[in-house]
Amino acid sequence: MVQIPNTPASAPTPQRAVPTSADVARLAGVSRATVSYVLNNTSAVRISEPTRRRVHEAAKELGYVPHAAARSLRAGQSRMVLMPSPTVPVGPLYGRFINELQWALSRLEYTVVQYGTLGLQGDEAARAWAELRPVAVLVPGSRVGPQGVAVLQRSGARAVVTLGPEAVEGAHALLMDHAAVGQVAATHLYARGRRRIGVVLPEEPGLEIYSAPRLDGVRRGLRGTDAVVTELPLAHDEEAAARLAERWPELGLDAVFAYNDEYAMLLMRALQDAGVRIPEDTALIGSDDLMLGRLLRPRLSTVHIELPSGRELAELVDRAVRDPAAAPERHEVLGAAVIQREST
Amino acid sequence: MVQIPNTPASAPTPQRAVPTSADVARLAGVSRATVSYVLNNTSAVRISEPTRRRVHEAAKELGYVPHAAARSLRAGQSRMVLMPSPTVPVGPLYGRFINELQWALSRLEYTVVQYGTLGLQGDEAARAWAELRPVAVLVPGSRVGPQGVAVLQRSGARAVVTLGPEAVEGAHALLMDHAAVGQVAATHLYARGRRRIGVVLPEEPGLEIYSAPRLDGVRRGLRGTDAVVTELPLAHDEEAAARLAERWPELGLDAVFAYNDEYAMLLMRALQDAGVRIPEDTALIGSDDLMLGRLLRPRLSTVHIELPSGRELAELVDRAVRDPAAAPERHEVLGAAVIQREST
Repeated sequence: MVQIPNTPASAPTPQRAVPTSADVARLAGVSRATVSYVLNNTSAVRISEPTRRRVHEAAKELGYVPHAAARSLRAGQSRMVLMPSPTVPVGPLYGRFINELQWALSRLEYTVVQYGTLGLQGDEAARAWAELRPVAVLVPGSRVGPQGVAVLQRSGARAVVTLGPEAVEGAHALLMDHAAVGQVAATHLYARGRRRIGVVLPEEPGLEIYSAPRLDGVRRGLRGTDAVVTELPLAHDEEAAARLAERWPELGLDAVFAYNDEYAMLLMRALQDAGVRIPEDTALIGSDDLMLGRLLRPRLSTVHIELPSGRELAELVDRAVRDPAAAPERHEVLGAAVIQREST
Repeated sequence: MVQIPNTPASAPTPQRAVPTSADVARLAGVSRATVSYVLNNTSAVRISEPTRRRVHEAAKELGYVPHAAARSLRAGQSRMVLMPSPTVPVGPLYGRFINELQWALSRLEYTVVQYGTLGLQGDEAARAWAELRPVAVLVPGSRVGPQGVAVLQRSGARAVVTLGPEAVEGAHALLMDHAAVGQVAATHLYARGRRRIGVVLPEEPGLEIYSAPRLDGVRRGLRGTDAVVTELPLAHDEEAAARLAERWPELGLDAVFAYNDEYAMLLMRALQDAGVRIPEDTALIGSDDLMLGRLLRPRLSTVHIELPSGRELAELVDRAVRDPAAAPERHEVLGAAVIQREST
């Protein structure tokens, strides 16, 4: 970090005491309760327009903003929806879904907070989340068990929703069965006449939660056929891909499901550099339907994944918060369909 | 969303009252203060090991977790570092930086919370952030003005740090001068003998905060030379790229700075499909040094951007929190260097 010496942006700000609602009440000449009613827009109590104006002016003059945590302590319930940050790098597909979800929840007047709990696992993570007293928690992946769900519920969370391959007892579940991704890819390759099928398994930590079910799906799709599956561990770097391509003749594969489009791009380049013709010698299919697949030559076949809409998930959260005693819902939310282009 | 009918994951959880520290105190047969000392690991007070154990066991049995907001209300200061979620899609480069920053701050015992304030602008956003009473706020882009900084400080934030092209009065600034990216790209293209230089300007909303200074940097790098700059607005889709490539003969450009590697890949494909030879007819340079650039043929020249390390930023935050009266610091934190490959 390059320091620019001696260029303070401005004079230091003198530290003032943080203004409280009592200060606002004093300046406006009203009670603290009135300040609270006005600033929280309570419609239950009738307050005259001049009084409202006086409170707003006093708050502005003092630079007072309500304290969300204090308010939710008083109300006994927050509007905070906690979404632990994903611990694995997420692709653009998931990023879009998250944005849509945040937008939909904010329309329903929830505050979406992402909370990183790096290094925390399972119920320990649940306890850390519980400390923030969210009204709802969305848990991506398989990061929390039944005990963790119970901890969250006892701390006041009215809705716990998991997004992953399996349901967790006591929580609502959006079931994302990534096996379906592998299965449609394998079925497609088999239908194209391929029988010796490689499956790329990323070596990057954390991706097993997607790659393992995708591999299972490939096996499921080929069960009872004469096709043979070969596992291909691969790191996402050029040297690793080149080493794998070198072994291609001995591997004798006529098709590969490459985990996703980014690994498919990496492997396509290494295979082409090694003189392997795609799809003549080896067919190649990715997943996630990223734009870059269409920019490759041959154009990359892929599995298009349909995630639930953020709006639908937001509505599930809202339903669950309103009626926390209702039975947990389960929804299958992952659709998978092959888009055939030129590489298969 | 496909609903699976009638498959509740388990019986509905009966809603129990949220356990409080008073419940823990009662069960353990100690005072509430003792519960607080034990669970917050206070070393100031000596408490016997058997008592500690009794409190922990009672807390576990009741499923009690401390309330972070209540604790920070009592302590008068939170350990929450608020980082508003970026409103534009961020690339892998920025994602890595954020992960590193979260990690470094959690090592310093801060809790990093990302807070989406979609649709809120400037000081209105600052007020929403202030409601959470963070001890520090990191503001990406140019999303807050001097008034917003003051609102945050008056609500108790001891450190406000902006990450963007310009400093804001009263706040610490990590200055990211994206003009440097355009400048080194332009200087490189000029040195390679190119004179009619196009600059891709993404049409996706929100990216101007990066693309405008990059364009300025190109102009700055070519000031006083005989080179001519042409602006090339471009959406990130194939059809838009094909339309731009069709106009190539009339544009008469011998080089392009393509905003980043993803736009460069898009444009490279469209130009190659239209029969334009790279780099013979037109040189092409991206930015961000993504892996995909090395997988293109010709291999993509790019600008490598060096962001500050998350550790350094975390230390700046910690320094500012400890000494909020110190003069705001300013640091130039963005390094830019051309990596020449085959496309220029």
